[in-house]
Amino acid sequence: MKEESIIQLFTKSNTKFHNDDCEVLEVKKNHIPIVTCDSLIENVHFRLDWHPPEDLAKKLFHVNLSDVISSGGLPQWCLLQIGISKNITKEFLYKFSKSFLKECKKYQTTLIGGDTFRSDIFILSLTMGGYTKKYISRKSEPNSYLYVTGNLGLSLLGYKILNKEIEIPQNLKKIPIQKHLAPKARTDIAKTIYPYTSAMMDVSDGLVQDATKMAKVSGYQLIIYVERIPIQKKFRNFIDYESALISGEEYELLFTSKKNLKNLSFTKIGWVSDQKIKNQPVKFLLNGKEIFPKKGFEHF
Amino acid sequence: MKEESIIQLFTKSNTKFHNDDCEVLEVKKNHIPIVTCDSLIENVHFRLDWHPPEDLAKKLFHVNLSDVISSGGLPQWCLLQIGISKNITKEFLYKFSKSFLKECKKYQTTLIGGDTFRSDIFILSLTMGGYTKKYISRKSEPNSYLYVTGNLGLSLLGYKILNKEIEIPQNLKKIPIQKHLAPKARTDIAKTIYPYTSAMMDVSDGLVQDATKMAKVSGYQLIIYVERIPIQKKFRNFIDYESALISGEEYELLFTSKKNLKNLSFTKIGWVSDQKIKNQPVKFLLNGKEIFPKKGFEHF
Repeated sequence: MKEESIIQLFTKSNTKFHNDDCEVLEVKKNHIPIVTCDSLIENVHFRLDWHPPEDLAKKLFHVNLSDVISSGGLPQWCLLQIGISKNITKEFLYKFSKSFLKECKKYQTTLIGGDTFRSDIFILSLTMGGYTKKYISRKSEPNSYLYVTGNLGLSLLGYKILNKEIEIPQNLKKIPIQKHLAPKARTDIAKTIYPYTSAMMDVSDGLVQDATKMAKVSGYQLIIYVERIPIQKKFRNFIDYESALISGEEYELLFTSKKNLKNLSFTKIGWVSDQKIKNQPVKFLLNGKEIFPKKGFEHF
Repeated sequence: MKEESIIQLFTKSNTKFHNDDCEVLEVKKNHIPIVTCDSLIENVHFRLDWHPPEDLAKKLFHVNLSDVISSGGLPQWCLLQIGISKNITKEFLYKFSKSFLKECKKYQTTLIGGDTFRSDIFILSLTMGGYTKKYISRKSEPNSYLYVTGNLGLSLLGYKILNKEIEIPQNLKKIPIQKHLAPKARTDIAKTIYPYTSAMMDVSDGLVQDATKMAKVSGYQLIIYVERIPIQKKFRNFIDYESALISGEEYELLFTSKKNLKNLSFTKIGWVSDQKIKNQPVKFLLNGKEIFPKKGFEHF
């Protein structure tokens, strides 16, 4: 395939794609413009034998979308860089582009530009811009409640099923595998949370690492009550607390609030203390007894 | 090296780097915000055995900066994504980060965020934002002059020297090798050009391909007088017109103007005709006789 044909896959019916040296950003009045970027690299973040092109496109879009909504924003534009390896067929790219543009449309995000090149491995790098009326950082206030949306542990379970590390009944496989291959940013619940939250981030490296990051920003120790961590009922035989604590790529929202909230879509799992961190950013308690969970997957 | 230590290499003394889910863009009043992105991938865009880390950092910065100034802008912020392979040492990263931050400082650009991950090959992906009072696109007006800054052919000559395809005297090697390893965006001349230009782009894929792209945007045929293409005097024995026409990664500015300009920093090489393109976006004439140059390196 020629570069021009590849670009056309992503630009048909997109009148805002100029393929210029730079793209102009349209800034919404009375809004704060925000930006994020996240890459997916073959054999680092995904395996082509596991990932259908449609799901890979969704994942690329949603890992970035998740950052945007974690900051209290809505998406507006994106730039896509693709390094195409020899094993990528025309059909794969066609399906990938169709699925990617579908997500763009669904979330009112314009693909304004990007770059394509030949590469030894398949490389996907997305920059996504958005806007917000009120930027939500990761900086929590002392004496706040700590919440997480949805359930944890499903992405790691999906990975283990695909990697043949665990056997689970056939009828239960679909949910965790989909969570791993095509996670969805929690746009459905974000708006409900925004008015009450003081700090927010998404769970991408696992609760242990992400809560630690959140704690370090404000400098106040977090307390997490491990028995409260939400694990979907029908998967409790396959996800223990340890797995739920380290499962990354969950894209659930971890947030704090001064308010004592009750909602079926999120769970109160802990507390931002008023104690400044000395050595331990997060204290994990399981039924009142302190535990020291593993960190889970680390990039380095 | 741990992820945190790598991030610290790029964030020391940078108070605007928050390592948050998103970064906030500061938009300058009465300016148009613009954005671009460009990746450099090991064994696709560079070879580690040729490229000192300092030059690689400069190249990554300048290929993006070149897009920003080609659009009539100045840089303001960037997001850096790095995939680090096992062969990358701590010392390499230290030198790379130091050189990168030096360029940021020199061009008043803030590194506001990014992403690091482990990878099989060294991957560098930069998103750069800037601002302009007047956006300059690639769309040329008919009956304009066509100009190019500096000289062409040096980057390809540098590549050939490094690749041992050509022998040139020792005292002449430095200039073309530096042009290839660490090209500089033409910020020095851009401001002089802006008041007069109607369309502009940088020469990154070689004049043949880039002029073709420019012609396709407006739909008017370009005429290029090949004998006018600037080749630096002392390299004329090693750069013929064919090389100068296809040499990519030059990062010289290709621009049009209604005005008949005279300046030592750029050369009038052709004309935007008032003929709509039929089959041939660019017509190349060498001493009045039409020639059909090769396209040069294609990404696919």
